[in-house]
Amino acid sequence: AQLSHLYHFSKVFYLCVHAISGNTDGAVARESTERNCSSTPPYLPSTAVNTSLQLEELRVQMRGMNISAYIIPATDAHLSEYIAPRDARLAFMTGFTGSAGTAVVTLNKAALWTDSRYWVQAERQMDCNWELEKDVSISSVAQWLISEVPKGDEIGFDPFLFSLSDLQTPCRLTWQEKVEHIRTQMGDSPYKPTGLLLSALDETAWLFNMRGNDIPYNPFFYSYTLLTMDEIWLFLHMERVTEELKVYLNASCEGALCVQLKGYDTILDHLKNYVTRPGVKVWIGTEYTNYALYEVITPQDKLLTSSYSPVLTTKAVKDETEQQILRDAHVRDAVAVIQFLMWLEKTVPEGNQTELTAAEYVDKCRRWKDSRGPSFGTISASGPNAALAHYSPSKETNRRLTVDEMYLVDSGGQYLDGTTDITRTVHWGKPTEMQKEAFTRVLMGNIEISRTIFPSGTRGVNMEMLGRRALWEVGLNYGHGTGHGVGNYFGVHEWPVGFQSNNIPFRAGMFTSIEPGYYKENDFGIRIEDVAVVVPVQTKYGNNYLTFDTVSLVPYDRKLIDTSLLSSEQLHFLNKYYETIRSMVGPELDNQGLREEKDWMLRNTEPFAEIGSSASVSSSSLTLIALAVALLHNIV
Amino acid sequence: AQLSHLYHFSKVFYLCVHAISGNTDGAVARESTERNCSSTPPYLPSTAVNTSLQLEELRVQMRGMNISAYIIPATDAHLSEYIAPRDARLAFMTGFTGSAGTAVVTLNKAALWTDSRYWVQAERQMDCNWELEKDVSISSVAQWLISEVPKGDEIGFDPFLFSLSDLQTPCRLTWQEKVEHIRTQMGDSPYKPTGLLLSALDETAWLFNMRGNDIPYNPFFYSYTLLTMDEIWLFLHMERVTEELKVYLNASCEGALCVQLKGYDTILDHLKNYVTRPGVKVWIGTEYTNYALYEVITPQDKLLTSSYSPVLTTKAVKDETEQQILRDAHVRDAVAVIQFLMWLEKTVPEGNQTELTAAEYVDKCRRWKDSRGPSFGTISASGPNAALAHYSPSKETNRRLTVDEMYLVDSGGQYLDGTTDITRTVHWGKPTEMQKEAFTRVLMGNIEISRTIFPSGTRGVNMEMLGRRALWEVGLNYGHGTGHGVGNYFGVHEWPVGFQSNNIPFRAGMFTSIEPGYYKENDFGIRIEDVAVVVPVQTKYGNNYLTFDTVSLVPYDRKLIDTSLLSSEQLHFLNKYYETIRSMVGPELDNQGLREEKDWMLRNTEPFAEIGSSASVSSSSLTLIALAVALLHNIV
Repeated sequence: AQLSHLYHFSKVFYLCVHAISGNTDGAVARESTERNCSSTPPYLPSTAVNTSLQLEELRVQMRGMNISAYIIPATDAHLSEYIAPRDARLAFMTGFTGSAGTAVVTLNKAALWTDSRYWVQAERQMDCNWELEKDVSISSVAQWLISEVPKGDEIGFDPFLFSLSDLQTPCRLTWQEKVEHIRTQMGDSPYKPTGLLLSALDETAWLFNMRGNDIPYNPFFYSYTLLTMDEIWLFLHMERVTEELKVYLNASCEGALCVQLKGYDTILDHLKNYVTRPGVKVWIGTEYTNYALYEVITPQDKLLTSSYSPVLTTKAVKDETEQQILRDAHVRDAVAVIQFLMWLEKTVPEGNQTELTAAEYVDKCRRWKDSRGPSFGTISASGPNAALAHYSPSKETNRRLTVDEMYLVDSGGQYLDGTTDITRTVHWGKPTEMQKEAFTRVLMGNIEISRTIFPSGTRGVNMEMLGRRALWEVGLNYGHGTGHGVGNYFGVHEWPVGFQSNNIPFRAGMFTSIEPGYYKENDFGIRIEDVAVVVPVQTKYGNNYLTFDTVSLVPYDRKLIDTSLLSSEQLHFLNKYYETIRSMVGPELDNQGLREEKDWMLRNTEPFAEIGSSASVSSSSLTLIALAVALLHNIV
Repeated sequence: AQLSHLYHFSKVFYLCVHAISGNTDGAVARESTERNCSSTPPYLPSTAVNTSLQLEELRVQMRGMNISAYIIPATDAHLSEYIAPRDARLAFMTGFTGSAGTAVVTLNKAALWTDSRYWVQAERQMDCNWELEKDVSISSVAQWLISEVPKGDEIGFDPFLFSLSDLQTPCRLTWQEKVEHIRTQMGDSPYKPTGLLLSALDETAWLFNMRGNDIPYNPFFYSYTLLTMDEIWLFLHMERVTEELKVYLNASCEGALCVQLKGYDTILDHLKNYVTRPGVKVWIGTEYTNYALYEVITPQDKLLTSSYSPVLTTKAVKDETEQQILRDAHVRDAVAVIQFLMWLEKTVPEGNQTELTAAEYVDKCRRWKDSRGPSFGTISASGPNAALAHYSPSKETNRRLTVDEMYLVDSGGQYLDGTTDITRTVHWGKPTEMQKEAFTRVLMGNIEISRTIFPSGTRGVNMEMLGRRALWEVGLNYGHGTGHGVGNYFGVHEWPVGFQSNNIPFRAGMFTSIEPGYYKENDFGIRIEDVAVVVPVQTKYGNNYLTFDTVSLVPYDRKLIDTSLLSSEQLHFLNKYYETIRSMVGPELDNQGLREEKDWMLRNTEPFAEIGSSASVSSSSLTLIALAVALLHNIV
C-alpha cells in the first residue's frame, strides 16, 4: 500500500455537513444507550447517526480516483484541537463527535480509532457501518490498513490535515516588539533560518495581538504568517481586513516592520516562491505545520525543523503582567463557579435541574463577570454520564440532577484577561464509601502534583504519576492526560505546556491545568481540575527550584473527602489552599455584595483538623488520644 | 561540514594503547588534584596524561585524508557500555578513563564532552590539550563542530562505532528452544522480516546459552548472529571454536536448527550478500546495531527497525527459574557484603585500610561464595572521592579509610546463577547533620520507588522522580540515572530495562537496580543501591498492578538514618525489609557458621519504632505522648 495525495478531496463533503449531521431519526429509544451490532436486527440507540449515505458518496469518489482506503482525521488545516463545524469531517462521516479520533474507510469497511475517554460515546453515536478500534497507536491503524488494503493499492488522505508530528486585545508587548523578539531568536539560532512559517492559529494571533471568532470557544481567525528577517507576510481572508486594521499593521509601507497582507489561499504558492530564492532556510514547528506546506520546502537544506516554533515556546512563559491578569480572571471566575455551585445546592433538591439547565446557568454566571463566552463546550454530567470523561449534554442524553447521583462539571470562560478551566465533582446526598475513597484519592493526586517541588526544566510527563499514585495504590486509574497549558484569552488547551510526553519542560511563568480523575463505567465519574502557575520556590539547600501555585479558587465538596486517607502534608496543603480562597475570593464576594455566597464559601473552606497523617498513623495517634482521655478521666 | 566514512581509521591507534596509556610522569604532585590551564605555566596534577603525541599522530592522519575533524566515541563495534582495553580509544586519546564521553579533534583544537558524574575526573586526567565541554547534548557537539569546521570541510568517524539510536551455562531453555521462540516472534510480526541481525554481544550469548571472557567483568565473546527462518549464521573467531562446541551447535549439519559458523570479520560481506537475495527483510535493533552494518541493508524496504531486537525484549523478562536463581545469588552476595561491612567496621579504626584494600577484600568475600569475579570495577570511595559518582580507586588517588569520613562502596559479583550490584554508604564516626539528612532523603527516594504500586507497562522514566522527590524538597539532586536492568550472569547493566527515557515499560519478571544518590563536591558522596524484581501485586479494586520486591539484602547504616524525616509508610517498609533480611540471610549465615556476622546482621536490622510519620506529625504525636506520660506521672 502506498500513500498518495488527494488535495482537498474531502472538501466535497463538508459543504453538506449541516444538511445531514443532525440525522438521529430511525431508531426508537429502548433500554440500552449503546449500539449492539451483533444482535439481529442490529440495535441502534436514538443517538446513533445513519452514515450509509456519506459512506456511499465517499466510496464513489474513491473508486473514481482508484483509492482503496481514505484516512479522515479529526483536525483542520491548522492542526487545531478545537475546530469549526465546517471542518468537522470526522463527525460528518462517522456520527461520532468526540474531539479525538481517526477514521479509515475502505471500499467495504469503515473503522474509527478513538481513546478510552470516548468509547462509550462512540458506541452511542455510530451506526453499524463502523467498527470501533480501541488501540489508538499509529501502528494499530497501520496494521489494520496492511490487513485490509491489497498490496500496491493506494491510500488517500488530505495533506492539509496531517502534521509532520479581528479583534485587538490589550497586551504588554506591541506586535512590533514581539516580531523583533522572535527575529532575535532566529538570528541566534546556529542554523541561521531566514524565515519562520507560523501555521497554528494561536501563533499568528499572539504575534500580532489579534483575535477573531472563526472557531467556537477559541478567539482565533484563519491565518498563516511567514516572518523573515526583513519582511512579514500575513495570509488571511482579505475581505475581513478593515482600514483600521491595515493602519494597525502598517500594511501600506515596505520594510521590516510593515505587514504585507495576502489572501489566505495564496500561502502555498507564496511559500513555493519564497523557497526558490537562493540561500533561504524556512523554520517550521513540525507539530503544527501541515504536510502540504512542509513538502514544498525542498531541498532539505532549505528546511529547519523543531517540534514547536519559537513563537509557541516564547508564548508558553507568561510575563508578570500576563500572570497577574490571568490570576485576576481566575478570582472572578471563582465567584461565578461559587454562585453556580450554591445555586445547584439549593435548586437540585427541588427536582427541576438537568445537565443542560446547569450548563446554561454556569455560562450565565460567567457572563455576569464579563466572560465573552465559555472556553469550551461545558461538560455537565450526572451519574453514569460522567463516566464519559468528555461528555457534553445533549437533548437525547440529558439527565435530571438528583441528590442520588454524583455530578461533574468541567467548564471555563474566555475573559479578555485570561482563559479559565475548572472541574468540580459534587454529591448533594449521601455518597457511597467507594465514591468517597475514589474522590479522596483523586484529590490526593491533585494535591501531590500541586505541592511537589522540582528543579526548573523538569518535564511534566516525568511528574504526572504523582496524580495517579494514590489511585494506583488501590488498583484505580484514569485514561486521560493529567493537564494542559492554559492561555491568556487564547485556547483553553494551550500546548506545548502540560504533562504529555511531547510537552516542553516546566519553567516559571507557565500555566497548566492539573486534573486527575476516576471513572466507573455506567456508574459515576470524578475529576478535580485546577489551573496552577509554575512559580520559583526557596529550598533549604538549592537554587532554581519550582513548584505550583493554584490559581483556581473554588472549594472541593467536603462530603466527599475522607481526611483519614490524607497525609499530614496533604491536609496542611488543603488548609492553606482554603485560606488562600478565603483571602482572595472573600473580598471579591464582598465587593459584589454576594453575602449568601460569601457564607457558602466560608462554610466550605472551614479548616480540617490537622491530626494524623495516614490511616495507620492516625490510628496510632488515636490510641494516644484515647489513652490521654482515659487518663484524664481517671484524674477527674 | 559533511560526514564521510573512514573505515577502521581509528584502528591505527589502539595498537599502541598499552605503550602510552600509563603515562602519568612529568608532573609533580602539588596541592590541587585538578588541572589549571589558565595559570602560567599550566598546572597539571600527577594524574593527568600527556596526550600531545597521540594528537600529533592523529592530525598527521587527518591531514593525509583531508579531514578537518574526527569524532571518537567511548564504545566498541558492538556499542558495548563496558569495553575491552584494546577498544579504549577515548581513554587513549584523551587520558580520561570514564565510561561515558565523546571526543572531537580538529587540526588545532581538541574537546571532550562528558556528563556531570565525570567532570572532576576529567579535570584530573586530561592535560591542557583538551577543552572540557559540560553540555553533553548532541546539539552541543554539533554546534561546536559548526563553529570550528569550515563549511564544506569533511568530518571523519569510524562507522563501526556509531549506533543508529566459550562457556556453556546452566539454563532452562535450550538454544534450539530460544531460536524457535524468536522465530515465532518474527513470524508474528506484520512486517514479515526474513532475518534478524543480532549485534549486541549479550544477544548472541543469550540465544546460544554461551559465555566468553573477551570483555572484563562481562562474560561475553565477540560475535554477531544472523538468524533467518531456516538458517542460523554465527560469526565469531573460528580459532576459538572447539570440537565440543561444534557438536553443541550442530555445526556440521544443514537445516533450520544447524548453526553455520563463520569468521567474525566476514559479517559485513555476508550481510551484503544476504541482502541481495530477493524478498529478504532484515530486522535490526537500532540501539545496538552499528552504522556500518545498517548502511549495507538497502534499499529501505529490506530493512525493519525497532529500538531493541526481540531477543533483548524477551531476555528482559526472567522466567520463574531465572528469577529464583537470581534471588539465590543475591542471598549469597548479601552474606559476602555483610562479612565485608563487619570487617571494615572492625579494621578501619585501626587505621590500616584504604580504598584499594577494601576493594580487594570485598572481591575476596565474593570469591568465597563462588563468584567468578566482580561484575564491574569496584567503586570504593572515601570522603571527597565519593563525590565522583563513578570513581574507581587507583594508586594515585587512593585514600586511607577513617572514622572521620563517609565511605561509599558500589560493587557486584558475577555468579553462574546471577549478576549482583549493590551500593552502601557508611560512616564509622559521627556524621554531620547535613550528611544524615542527605542520606535519609536518598533512602526515602530508594524506598519510595521500591514501595510504589503501578499498572503493568508503566515506564521507569515516568516513576524515577520518586527517587529524587525527597531530595528536591530541600533543593538537592543527583546527576545520574536511577537504575538499570541486571542480568543472569550477564552484563551488570542489562538494558533496555531501567529508568532511562529509552528503556522499555516494566513487566513482571524484570530486574532493575534502584539507586538514588547525592554528591557534595570535595566533601562526600552518598548512593543507596538495591536490585529489585518487578512482581505482581494484589490491589483493592484493580488487576494487573505491579510493585518491586528488593532482592539485595544488606542493612543500611543506622547511624545515618534520621527516622523523624520518614513517613509512617516509609518506616513500615524499612522494617518489613529488615524482617526479610533476617528471614532470608539469617539461615544462610547460620549454614556458613558465621556467628559473629549473624549477630552483626541482627543488630543492624533491629526494627525502628513506628510512631509518627513525618516531622510535623511526629511532633504532634510527641505532644500526645508527653501528655500521656505527664498524666501517668500525676496518677503515680
